[in-house]
Amino acid sequence: MIVLGIDPGSRKTGYGVIAGTAEGYRVVGCGLVRPRASATLHERIAQLCLGIDEVVVRLRPEAVALETAFVGRNVRSALILGQVRGAMLATVLKHGLPVREYAPREIKLAVTGTGSARKEQVAAMLSRLLELGLEPKPLDVTDALGIAYCDLARGASAIRPEDGTKKSGNSRSRGWAAFVTDHPELVA
Amino acid sequence: MIVLGIDPGSRKTGYGVIAGTAEGYRVVGCGLVRPRASATLHERIAQLCLGIDEVVVRLRPEAVALETAFVGRNVRSALILGQVRGAMLATVLKHGLPVREYAPREIKLAVTGTGSARKEQVAAMLSRLLELGLEPKPLDVTDALGIAYCDLARGASAIRPEDGTKKSGNSRSRGWAAFVTDHPELVA
Repeated sequence: MIVLGIDPGSRKTGYGVIAGTAEGYRVVGCGLVRPRASATLHERIAQLCLGIDEVVVRLRPEAVALETAFVGRNVRSALILGQVRGAMLATVLKHGLPVREYAPREIKLAVTGTGSARKEQVAAMLSRLLELGLEPKPLDVTDALGIAYCDLARGASAIRPEDGTKKSGNSRSRGWAAFVTDHPELVA
Repeated sequence: MIVLGIDPGSRKTGYGVIAGTAEGYRVVGCGLVRPRASATLHERIAQLCLGIDEVVVRLRPEAVALETAFVGRNVRSALILGQVRGAMLATVLKHGLPVREYAPREIKLAVTGTGSARKEQVAAMLSRLLELGLEPKPLDVTDALGIAYCDLARGASAIRPEDGTKKSGNSRSRGWAAFVTDHPELVA
């Protein structure tokens, strides 16, 4: 199963494509779609659609995962984020891809084993789980990878309930506990 | 010039396509795209995109007009409306169509001659201007037609500034004053 995680934003949209195989997870591709800073919202939406469409055509994901839309206090930001999100949905739904959503807590839990992990913890944990290398990735990219990772981890446990170790959180037990020992400064 | 006006909504989206010719305005087509009531938001967005895409392919508009997004108080509704709006934008921008936005006041002004007209006044006036016939159209459809009408009326005055009568509002002087005489019950 190949999953595309998207972290939509009007200034920059992060994407991460992960393949879940019998051997484990492999990053197929990840990056940012970043419209021209001077572009209008319409132009930015058009460029983001083109960018994500290109990612779908090139990397052939079989499903898409998004973070549940954050309901903040600001109506104007909700309207802008909503439009970018809707444009992303239109782009991937056009390809007939199923779209699944996860709450931020679920994503953090799947990646780090704790629902209250900070962005940096998620990024650092993912970097290890997915062998992202030493160069740090932008947070929008690790967020997108985290969303895709969550979908694969959740899907794996849902599809293979007979594997008891899956359900209790594979990334958690195999990852976070050992990880915090190496990087104690990341523990809140 | 053929303009597609869209009134986006997650439950139903109105569309209206008007051709502006030397002889006047002609409705090329109008209607509602109404997703299954039981559908999820994702499914509804996919169905709305398919519907509007089909309208674009069939009726060949050269530009798209939208009402400026209404910034209400409810963040959750803003997020839903934003997503539908963004999906509509993605759909028409994919066809390379220019998108223009108008404030509700501008649309009412262009159609009725007064920026504070009620929805029913706009609908009744449009029905006369566009010869929509006796059968009343849903308000989402007349709203969409009003948006397209506004774009054509505004475009006409912008493109031909030498025509003094245009700038001072052709629909207004030729329409509303006479119209309220016929339908005094519609005057607020």
